[in-house]
Amino acid sequence: MNEILVSIVMGSDSDLPIMKEAAEMLKHFNIGYEMDVCSAHRTPEKAIDFAKNAHKRGIKVIIAGAGGAAHLPGVLAAMTPLPVIGVPIKASISIDGWDSILSILQMPSGIPVATVALNGAKNAGILAVQILSTDNDDLRNKIILYKESLRDGVLEKSKKLKENN
Amino acid sequence: MNEILVSIVMGSDSDLPIMKEAAEMLKHFNIGYEMDVCSAHRTPEKAIDFAKNAHKRGIKVIIAGAGGAAHLPGVLAAMTPLPVIGVPIKASISIDGWDSILSILQMPSGIPVATVALNGAKNAGILAVQILSTDNDDLRNKIILYKESLRDGVLEKSKKLKENN
Amino acid sequence: MNEILVSIVMGSDSDLPIMKEAAEMLKHFNIGYEMDVCSAHRTPEKAIDFAKNAHKRGIKVIIAGAGGAAHLPGVLAAMTPLPVIGVPIKASISIDGWDSILSILQMPSGIPVATVALNGAKNAGILAVQILSTDNDDLRNKIILYKESLRDGVLEKSKKLKENN
Amino acid sequence: MNEILVSIVMGSDSDLPIMKEAAEMLKHFNIGYEMDVCSAHRTPEKAIDFAKNAHKRGIKVIIAGAGGAAHLPGVLAAMTPLPVIGVPIKASISIDGWDSILSILQMPSGIPVATVALNGAKNAGILAVQILSTDNDDLRNKIILYKESLRDGVLEKSKKLKENN
Amino acid sequence: MNEILVSIVMGSDSDLPIMKEAAEMLKHFNIGYEMDVCSAHRTPEKAIDFAKNAHKRGIKVIIAGAGGAAHLPGVLAAMTPLPVIGVPIKASISIDGWDSILSILQMPSGIPVATVALNGAKNAGILAVQILSTDNDDLRNKIILYKESLRDGVLEKSKKLKENN
Amino acid sequence: MNEILVSIVMGSDSDLPIMKEAAEMLKHFNIGYEMDVCSAHRTPEKAIDFAKNAHKRGIKVIIAGAGGAAHLPGVLAAMTPLPVIGVPIKASISIDGWDSILSILQMPSGIPVATVALNGAKNAGILAVQILSTDNDDLRNKIILYKESLRDGVLEKSKKLKENN
Amino acid sequence: MNEILVSIVMGSDSDLPIMKEAAEMLKHFNIGYEMDVCSAHRTPEKAIDFAKNAHKRGIKVIIAGAGGAAHLPGVLAAMTPLPVIGVPIKASISIDGWDSILSILQMPSGIPVATVALNGAKNAGILAVQILSTDNDDLRNKIILYKESLRDGVLEKSKKLKENN
Amino acid sequence: MNEILVSIVMGSDSDLPIMKEAAEMLKHFNIGYEMDVCSAHRTPEKAIDFAKNAHKRGIKVIIAGAGGAAHLPGVLAAMTPLPVIGVPIKASISIDGWDSILSILQMPSGIPVATVALNGAKNAGILAVQILSTDNDDLRNKIILYKESLRDGVLEKSKKLKENN
Repeated sequence: MNEILVSIVMGSDSDLPIMKEAAEMLKHFNIGYEMDVCSAHRTPEKAIDFAKNAHKRGIKVIIAGAGGAAHLPGVLAAMTPLPVIGVPIKASISIDGWDSILSILQMPSGIPVATVALNGAKNAGILAVQILSTDNDDLRNKIILYKESLRDGVLEKSKKLKENN
Repeated sequence: MNEILVSIVMGSDSDLPIMKEAAEMLKHFNIGYEMDVCSAHRTPEKAIDFAKNAHKRGIKVIIAGAGGAAHLPGVLAAMTPLPVIGVPIKASISIDGWDSILSILQMPSGIPVATVALNGAKNAGILAVQILSTDNDDLRNKIILYKESLRDGVLEKSKKLKENN
Repeated sequence: MNEILVSIVMGSDSDLPIMKEAAEMLKHFNIGYEMDVCSAHRTPEKAIDFAKNAHKRGIKVIIAGAGGAAHLPGVLAAMTPLPVIGVPIKASISIDGWDSILSILQMPSGIPVATVALNGAKNAGILAVQILSTDNDDLRNKIILYKESLRDGVLEKSKKLKENN
Repeated sequence: MNEILVSIVMGSDSDLPIMKEAAEMLKHFNIGYEMDVCSAHRTPEKAIDFAKNAHKRGIKVIIAGAGGAAHLPGVLAAMTPLPVIGVPIKASISIDGWDSILSILQMPSGIPVATVALNGAKNAGILAVQILSTDNDDLRNKIILYKESLRDGVLEKSKKLKENN
Repeated sequence: MNEILVSIVMGSDSDLPIMKEAAEMLKHFNIGYEMDVCSAHRTPEKAIDFAKNAHKRGIKVIIAGAGGAAHLPGVLAAMTPLPVIGVPIKASISIDGWDSILSILQMPSGIPVATVALNGAKNAGILAVQILSTDNDDLRNKIILYKESLRDGVLEKSKKLKENN
Repeated sequence: MNEILVSIVMGSDSDLPIMKEAAEMLKHFNIGYEMDVCSAHRTPEKAIDFAKNAHKRGIKVIIAGAGGAAHLPGVLAAMTPLPVIGVPIKASISIDGWDSILSILQMPSGIPVATVALNGAKNAGILAVQILSTDNDDLRNKIILYKESLRDGVLEKSKKLKENN
Repeated sequence: MNEILVSIVMGSDSDLPIMKEAAEMLKHFNIGYEMDVCSAHRTPEKAIDFAKNAHKRGIKVIIAGAGGAAHLPGVLAAMTPLPVIGVPIKASISIDGWDSILSILQMPSGIPVATVALNGAKNAGILAVQILSTDNDDLRNKIILYKESLRDGVLEKSKKLKENN
Repeated sequence: MNEILVSIVMGSDSDLPIMKEAAEMLKHFNIGYEMDVCSAHRTPEKAIDFAKNAHKRGIKVIIAGAGGAAHLPGVLAAMTPLPVIGVPIKASISIDGWDSILSILQMPSGIPVATVALNGAKNAGILAVQILSTDNDDLRNKIILYKESLRDGVLEKSKKLKENN
């Protein structure tokens, strides 16, 4: 089994269908990960313990998803030296996602959160892989291959569109 | 000297010119207060200690102001049984205040923050007094008098406008 | 039967499915409440009578929900010394809830409304309990227990997520 | 002196520089008007008295301007059978005017407010004249002349622009 | 049959389900009206002819509804001395209605459009009646009765809510 | 002197400082143009005459700029077979430009307006040249050269930045 | 078969149901076109090759549609001297279309994109025809006829509405 | 001299005052960097060359800042396997920064950009350091020390505020 390098946390288990896409991306790149529910507001102490100790457990990147007044990514970022990727989620409480986006993106000086698109958990997974690849040439090559597969997928669609129209 | 019942905290000392208006309102109603800088992101442990223990020190209401991805009111609310009043601040980083408002207002189920208007620290002070007045008839009467003074101020302006136009 | 301490009012009976969640929270904490429909625009005189006299009837906190140009919380706040909690409602007329939020939140100096999240009636109920607990240690302990139950709920979900993934 | 047909009210005397433009337009059309400060939140009883009785005093149209959570036009409309013209004002508290606009525009079924542009008090004055002209052919002819003067002003500017460029 | 005093026009026949509510309100008050489809962009000449001549045919108020870049109310207002009530419509093209609202509301100095809420055709009908009532005491009394019926409706709902909860 | 191929119109002479940038771009490409003030609301008949006849006078492209409820580009587009380029202008009445953008961009099916960025008159000029170049190889080559000059400008700035930092 | 003058490209094949409407409009005017999928982010090199060479292949106008952070129209515009029409698409990732609109509309000085309404591919097709008609009187006459057919369609609907109401 | 690990690029030299803050942060952590102007729209070929080859030159992280329709970060991300940090800039063309934010944040599946706050170049610098620290314990310790210095700064301000108020 792979060493766990990425920790995926979400503010509520209702975020799982979105956040799973980050896990699937990590699986695709054969990166070990863990996944947990952890709320900045309902389990603040667990969040703090997690953030303070993640790097000591060998975690290299944290991916945190939350909706509404989405404080989880920022609260974790306050407590960890690791890069934190934030995934704004269009939860049922959310005002079209604007609240989640702004609560995660607009972090104050000194405490960045690497924010991806609304519901963009898949991209959060890829970004984590890119971060891990900065000292891993094998992984970088896989990313190059992955981008080529994206290209080939579009070229395939282009071919089909031309055949059908 | 009055017993300290209200704690005013702000995410940055640059919020002081706004947050002072809460203090002035409490002074007006003769309510003891304390004032401090405390950042959810830069001093998370101080924020947690403060929130966990405020009610043990006799604090009854917390007023918290912050700008941008304004997590301070929500993080305090997560850790205290006390009512927390949130003041969204139009800080220099802020996108016209929308980020501050949504980060404070859109709290998840279970952890309310009593949000007031953008830069509305004065109203936060009055709301704290109203909360304290729920078991204090003297204080309630002072609020009634205060509202009468607001009315009289408008009536005075009405008189002047009619004289000048 | 419990003494009635909280009054829940809503601008239209179509707001009931949302506003009921405030009532359920008060029931959970064993706080007596009343519930009524009262429109700032269609029954202004009833609204005024209600607001002027609520504190004389022993009411300690008012919770008011409304959608669109949501004037009810502010109009009640203008007429009562009690703390007023405003619940913006995403009604059918509402522009994604922005109108309700801004009409309730952006009250002028002197007349605060303690605004909670869009459709956040449950949090309005909890906030009312927190306000009542400022002079009631039993109630405060119940809030502490309630927050522990929120925590335990998340921990339970965390356990399940780990088992299933 | 002319009979007073239009009442211009504003939530705060700081709205006067804007609201004066309505008065100037009425003067231009030789319509009698009155002007007053009256706050839905600070002088609710004055607002109610005014709204209930305006039509009994011969007033035909009410123009009401306010900023922030701008309830004045709606509260007056709730209490009067007269047409109410609302002027959203970009006050210092206002979030770029969005709060004023939405609080005035999004009135519920049954209680319209005729809303004009942000800070559009001049247009409120013209709209009041148009309303009064529905049974007054002289006034209608003056409006037709006024529109012709607008046209001539643009044609004059067109001429200058062509000369200078 | 009643003399036709109000003209209801809409930019597209897809606006009919909304705009019909204005007609129903006029029927309720026994005001004669006409209804037509007329596009500022697809039938500009018809729009101009209509606007230039409406007052000559005895029309007193124009109600115009449109969605997206909703120019119809403003284009009619440019050409008629009559008061024009604009109804922003959340059409399929519309970006949550913001485009319709801003295109109708933000008219330049000199050419007001009396804007009502998004999809607020019913209120447009009532506003038209209020405008017509400025010189018609019978009609004003009917408006007073109508507002009383709104009040009674809410009081009835209040009674039911109390019985059922 | 060059044949006039492009007509630049603006809703108000206050738009001139912005709209001049379109003229300068046309001058740069040696394209004949005319410039005029013409308001959809204040001079509707002039606007209509202009739009109906522009192509008969040899005009090939219309550039129209306006602010607030910016109907001019759409009204012209309704009346002309020519391509109309719309320039949203952040006028003093404008709500941060959103009203101008949406009033111009969100045109209904059948009547396009080619919208450029807020205050983007310079780009409107370039777009007009691109349109004219579709049957003019010399002009196309000039556009290619212009883009090369943009590139060279950035490369020059790149060089300077590297020298100074 | 007609010479291909217009190239329709889209960022994803999921944009096809919208972008097809541009093709249908071109068919209506008997203009030769091609249609392809081409992503600024997944097939950047194809996009660049396409943009650099389109004018050499006889293409006169490019129509590009994309959703979310919609870079395709701008990236093509950077590389081609041809006029580029941008169609913002309300894709599943899109925040109510605002991201697509702003990413396409707000192009920097020097590189215009002729932006049409959200999902406005049909208008993009018409705009392309208008551009091609600047040196083609036959085509211009067809546009005049097309506008007459729009007018007749509305007049027909007007007739029906009057018969049925 | 340090090996260059981070490349800071900006769309225009007017972005330099903001983007410099990223450079200062890298200097603080003793990380080698380069800085350049490179426009997705004006120098697309330079942008592509840069993006394709950066990792071959030993660059590990790219920081890209741009305003308006800010395509630079996304266009670079399309062409490089490296993590790209995007800095939305409130340029003069920008609509309060919303265009820059959405153009950078809302990237499609497969091509993430790690977005930081509006004008948040300083945080982009810190995030780059955090990314580099994932395989560098010394650097991680420096980040921990940096966060302690942030904390100490706030504690110092807290002390001053208490002394002065």
